Amino acid sequence: MQRDIKKLISQMTLEEKAGMCSGLDFWHLKGVERLGVPSIMVTDGPHGLRKQEQKGDHVGIHDSVPATCFPTAAGLASSWNRELVEKVGTALGEECQAEGVSVLLGPGANIKRSPLCGRNFEYFSEDPYLSSEMAASHIKGVQSQGVGTSLKHFAANNQEHRRMSVDVIVDERTLREIYLSSFEGAVKKGKPWTVMCSYNKINGEYASENKNLLTEILRDEWGFEGFVVSDWGAVNERVKGLEAGLDLEMPSSFGVGDGKIVEAVKNGILPEEVLDRAVERILNIIFKVVDNRKENAAYDKHAHHQLAREVARECMVLLKNEDNILPLKKQGTVAIIGEFAKRPRYQGGGSSHVNPTILDDVYEEIRKSAGDNVNVTYAQGYSLEKDETNEGLLEEAKKAAVQADVAVIFAGLPDHYESEGYDRQHMRMPESHCALIEAIAQVQPNVVVVLSNGSPIEMSWIDKVKGVLEAYLAGQAMGGAVADLLFGDANPSGKLAETFPKELSHNPSYLNFPGEGDRVEYREGAFVGYRYYDKKNIEPLFPFGYGLSYTAFEYSDLNINKKEMLDTETVTVSVKVKNIGDMTGKEVVQLYVRDVESSVIRPEKELKGFEKVELKPGEEKTVVFELDKRAFAYYNTDIKDWHVETGEFEILIGKSSRDIVLKEKIVVKSTVTVRKPVHRNTLMGDLLSDPNLAPVIKEFMSRATQENSVISVPQDQEKPMDPIMMAIMRYTPLRAIVNFSRGAFTEEKMNELIQKLNEKLNG
Amino acid sequence: MQRDIKKLISQMTLEEKAGMCSGLDFWHLKGVERLGVPSIMVTDGPHGLRKQEQKGDHVGIHDSVPATCFPTAAGLASSWNRELVEKVGTALGEECQAEGVSVLLGPGANIKRSPLCGRNFEYFSEDPYLSSEMAASHIKGVQSQGVGTSLKHFAANNQEHRRMSVDVIVDERTLREIYLSSFEGAVKKGKPWTVMCSYNKINGEYASENKNLLTEILRDEWGFEGFVVSDWGAVNERVKGLEAGLDLEMPSSFGVGDGKIVEAVKNGILPEEVLDRAVERILNIIFKVVDNRKENAAYDKHAHHQLAREVARECMVLLKNEDNILPLKKQGTVAIIGEFAKRPRYQGGGSSHVNPTILDDVYEEIRKSAGDNVNVTYAQGYSLEKDETNEGLLEEAKKAAVQADVAVIFAGLPDHYESEGYDRQHMRMPESHCALIEAIAQVQPNVVVVLSNGSPIEMSWIDKVKGVLEAYLAGQAMGGAVADLLFGDANPSGKLAETFPKELSHNPSYLNFPGEGDRVEYREGAFVGYRYYDKKNIEPLFPFGYGLSYTAFEYSDLNINKKEMLDTETVTVSVKVKNIGDMTGKEVVQLYVRDVESSVIRPEKELKGFEKVELKPGEEKTVVFELDKRAFAYYNTDIKDWHVETGEFEILIGKSSRDIVLKEKIVVKSTVTVRKPVHRNTLMGDLLSDPNLAPVIKEFMSRATQENSVISVPQDQEKPMDPIMMAIMRYTPLRAIVNFSRGAFTEEKMNELIQKLNEKLNG
Repeated sequence: MQRDIKKLISQMTLEEKAGMCSGLDFWHLKGVERLGVPSIMVTDGPHGLRKQEQKGDHVGIHDSVPATCFPTAAGLASSWNRELVEKVGTALGEECQAEGVSVLLGPGANIKRSPLCGRNFEYFSEDPYLSSEMAASHIKGVQSQGVGTSLKHFAANNQEHRRMSVDVIVDERTLREIYLSSFEGAVKKGKPWTVMCSYNKINGEYASENKNLLTEILRDEWGFEGFVVSDWGAVNERVKGLEAGLDLEMPSSFGVGDGKIVEAVKNGILPEEVLDRAVERILNIIFKVVDNRKENAAYDKHAHHQLAREVARECMVLLKNEDNILPLKKQGTVAIIGEFAKRPRYQGGGSSHVNPTILDDVYEEIRKSAGDNVNVTYAQGYSLEKDETNEGLLEEAKKAAVQADVAVIFAGLPDHYESEGYDRQHMRMPESHCALIEAIAQVQPNVVVVLSNGSPIEMSWIDKVKGVLEAYLAGQAMGGAVADLLFGDANPSGKLAETFPKELSHNPSYLNFPGEGDRVEYREGAFVGYRYYDKKNIEPLFPFGYGLSYTAFEYSDLNINKKEMLDTETVTVSVKVKNIGDMTGKEVVQLYVRDVESSVIRPEKELKGFEKVELKPGEEKTVVFELDKRAFAYYNTDIKDWHVETGEFEILIGKSSRDIVLKEKIVVKSTVTVRKPVHRNTLMGDLLSDPNLAPVIKEFMSRATQENSVISVPQDQEKPMDPIMMAIMRYTPLRAIVNFSRGAFTEEKMNELIQKLNEKLNG
Repeated sequence: MQRDIKKLISQMTLEEKAGMCSGLDFWHLKGVERLGVPSIMVTDGPHGLRKQEQKGDHVGIHDSVPATCFPTAAGLASSWNRELVEKVGTALGEECQAEGVSVLLGPGANIKRSPLCGRNFEYFSEDPYLSSEMAASHIKGVQSQGVGTSLKHFAANNQEHRRMSVDVIVDERTLREIYLSSFEGAVKKGKPWTVMCSYNKINGEYASENKNLLTEILRDEWGFEGFVVSDWGAVNERVKGLEAGLDLEMPSSFGVGDGKIVEAVKNGILPEEVLDRAVERILNIIFKVVDNRKENAAYDKHAHHQLAREVARECMVLLKNEDNILPLKKQGTVAIIGEFAKRPRYQGGGSSHVNPTILDDVYEEIRKSAGDNVNVTYAQGYSLEKDETNEGLLEEAKKAAVQADVAVIFAGLPDHYESEGYDRQHMRMPESHCALIEAIAQVQPNVVVVLSNGSPIEMSWIDKVKGVLEAYLAGQAMGGAVADLLFGDANPSGKLAETFPKELSHNPSYLNFPGEGDRVEYREGAFVGYRYYDKKNIEPLFPFGYGLSYTAFEYSDLNINKKEMLDTETVTVSVKVKNIGDMTGKEVVQLYVRDVESSVIRPEKELKGFEKVELKPGEEKTVVFELDKRAFAYYNTDIKDWHVETGEFEILIGKSSRDIVLKEKIVVKSTVTVRKPVHRNTLMGDLLSDPNLAPVIKEFMSRATQENSVISVPQDQEKPMDPIMMAIMRYTPLRAIVNFSRGAFTEEKMNELIQKLNEKLNG
């Protein structure tokens, strides 16, 4: 429906307009009844609704209405399946319509800088490309149902520790290539109706007051057209925020923020157009909601539960499968050990905490999948109430294990280990879980561990078990999904969206996490996740992109449709992948790009494409990728743009970031010349290596220098120069030649030369 | 002799004064004949004189007069022997007097940030304490002979790559704790007559123009009283440099620099007092030289050669000695393999290149030490002319090895691998050296490798040989020293002054070395060397402080004379060490300090004391250390001073940085309170954890907050709070409480509270 929003705004009082820029209460925007502007509701997400009907809070304390709890983002990303994530989004959108929720507060596209971030389970990946693709799919799904999303937490909110005051010190290139890149793709491809700014400061300025982020980058560069909402309580100075591009303050500030806006307009400090602009953006979305409202919408909770099960199956990652211990045979005795099998850990704490519609009992689901020929026993193993080992439970578990053919241990991180609000202190599981695994492995050679956790853990016991299934926080249908995978009714196809380091200290952020006081420096720069482990050659426990299957895949025929391209062109890459095993399965074909030589420091390789394909035994498919400039570029802070240096690149096809099976080369030619003006401290070597400038400098210097100068410019000599002389010459600035030339090369001559060289550069 | 320098200056013309501030030529300062100011000579060092009589250069190209070549600093530091280094300095001072040299240009106290720095062989250590102690001893020795030194290259000159233009980006704390600390100790303890500023920029400003470095820190804080000289060609803008505290420009600028000074004084841009101050500093040293001149001085080159041999023995580090393959028996056949045995690599390239008085033939020295009962054979093994393997030489060497009882291979880095002027590209030896070791190890189980190199190398072959002796660049008497150690006529006592990583990529600077263009960021911060490997738990090939002996030592009775101290006090630490083997030997007792808990990021441990003791078999000595505040402090950038946080520290006694044998605790109490003013973004948790402020905030908030506020201040509750609520409360800034309090806590009340809290802080 067409509306004249501008006219509507003109009919509002200053106070009404200021009022539109903050919440009515915890979950509602204000309306203006006399003008027909309704009050809409927003609700926490992102992997399930947390719609609160009574007491409101933003950290998961009070109850919410039942909603389907899907796997959290850490799991969703491990599916590497865009369609699947979009399907989840669609289901979430349906539930929003059914509950009268207008905007779902998610997804989260923050990068996993440290495994310790308490909110990692809500985020997708350590890699910005994978993260942005997952976020975009989520957004598309939700919004396909006429419900908005709120891409969060923009930006660089990578820890919970002191999240409302911490100042993230991060260099521009890293911010662009890693932390913003994840949002950029999500905004451009997903087109979220709203974006939520984060609590923290970035390089000295609150995200909620950061005009560069909220306006110049988000809107002017990326084309975002919705409104920006504050994370709940993220507003520092309301007027400064509004000017920077923060349109909506949430929750209600009980008039404080509104009052400041009104005062600032009246005092002439804040131009009224700025307020009008924010109101217009908010109204645009409110009426988009109105226009898309589905009356009497409902959803089938059983169908959604079934979807949650199918999704969970694809999110789990088979990390180890020695002797093909999995899938389990549907016979003999299987001991299920660990309280998680009865009281599953399937979601995290905080604002994303969902009240599930149905909750699988893992043990029961395993019994069902196992069928009548399997004797399924159970032992608690540990108590979730305490981290310490309970010797009685341990003994009982050992007995159960001894009497079984295989023991399946459910372990991981209890609720209070992972939550919004605080970070983990270490990367270990509770002592009771580790001790249980060690003890069972001593009495039972066939041990499978099923892990429930939202972020990597150390696995000191890894060599003692045969199978490990990383279930992440798999949502309300975790039980069914695990049962399907354990007995081979489904084939694992998840791949890690993050590196599992052997120990926490190996993580790139370790020396600078969570910072000192209110300051955290991202000194590892762009070397986050596999970019770091690759470059430093530190062996991870499990690498990014890794995950096993019950079948096997073979790659062939990598083909690039050109050997050379301009950075304004695109290139098509194709590769064949074949299921050479005997079970239908899905494979994630991963494409990485490597810059063979660069003048700036770059990662060994970066993910630039992926496709998930399903293949029947013997089936082969061709997977096609299209790459453009961005796949080869780095962010050049001199020209403030993405830039490709002319040269050779490698296209790598991998089963994981550390299992590259095919590669090919391509030359990319830059259409952009980056010019650096010549000055008195420009080095001789830089001038001589520029084919444009070398003749000028050679001619000039041969006239100007004398025999007895220590510095001489190499003419076309017969024998190679001494390496020291070569180096000295190369690294000498023009001004130093004045000193070494015994009066032959004067300051005046130098300045004349500099002028000539700059003319040549620009000419 | 007392002189009225000020009066002398008053008699000089402006031009004469400006003239004093730059060299006469490459190696001489100007004099003023009519006023009786002589022209004095300076000469490259630091481990031997490079006095040039004809053509001058600063990078080791032209000839110099013969002088004793002692081990370079990398070796000297491995002795961990202050007296020994001082002895070397004394000998150098004698040679200076004999040659009429007034100032020896050294020692170099730059920190080894990367193993690749081409000039590492001239520097002492990765640790600032060890480096400063070695430098101070060197200075004391030279200056004891009435000859000046020039402590260089001040500061942060840690690479040769683009050394004249590179801008070192380093945070203040790192600069203070690591890079400056090394100079600080040397200046305070050694009192060098001159300091040489470096070529590079630091945080945007040339070292040669950096007033903070050259004046505020060097003179005002550290009490330096001599003159600052430019590294040869390091002057950028002469007048700015003079103002910053750069007194002397070297070499001659042929009037350019002088002219600029004269013009600036005439134009009123440069106060004449600044010029006078520089001239006074220079004259002070010139007359110090005059007063200390020893007429007809001479030195005994054979005695100095013998000293060089004794010193070299103590600089070498025994890295591996499987099956006690060393010392070699004086019987049977010993195959000496590798061209280094005939053409030893004993020094590095560049300004420190010495023309030796005598040069040991390693092979001959080994024959002499071996005596008549040993058949010493020789095979060239590789050609120093080429890095590639020479198959003929390899086969010949294998034959020699097969026919011997033991093979001693001389390998390492050829001359052009390590030099002033450029950095290494990788950390490997030439392929021919590695291939030789591998080939010999295949045919001969008893292999000892003697390494000649100025900086760490990768040792892919380490598991295949029984013995490794790191000889570093051991000076002209390397041959004799190696022979002494190989046959047990001397006992190795060197300890590594730097970490040998397993591979280059493990080095902390790896991701940021040598930087991008003219910018290098020290992103690893203070985590240089063992500070990094320790914290990241990355296993090195050989750790800092490591080195074997032919005897064994036992430690006992660690004693600290107080359990608690104020940071204004000192503490005495003693420990007993006993020789429990059967050969006289020297042990380096290392003392490290660990801060158990800190609000800032700190290394796991830091070297704060060391003593080298000689012990006969069965002999025991007590080693005593005195520690003051500095041993426990970090540099606090808020208060711009060294600061100790009250708390527990551990005193660790180690045989190496990774072999801690004894430890004890001590509590250090700070006498300084660091106060941070309260503001609207101060966190509730910070206020509540301050015993001074907690009562104020509790009282105020209990009045101000209402029941329905989401945020409440914990009163003395019976049951513990939910961890999420705890965290939310802790990390909430005051200004956010205004929003969450539903009007109960207004901005006005907040400001009132902030005022109260600040009054309490300051009251």
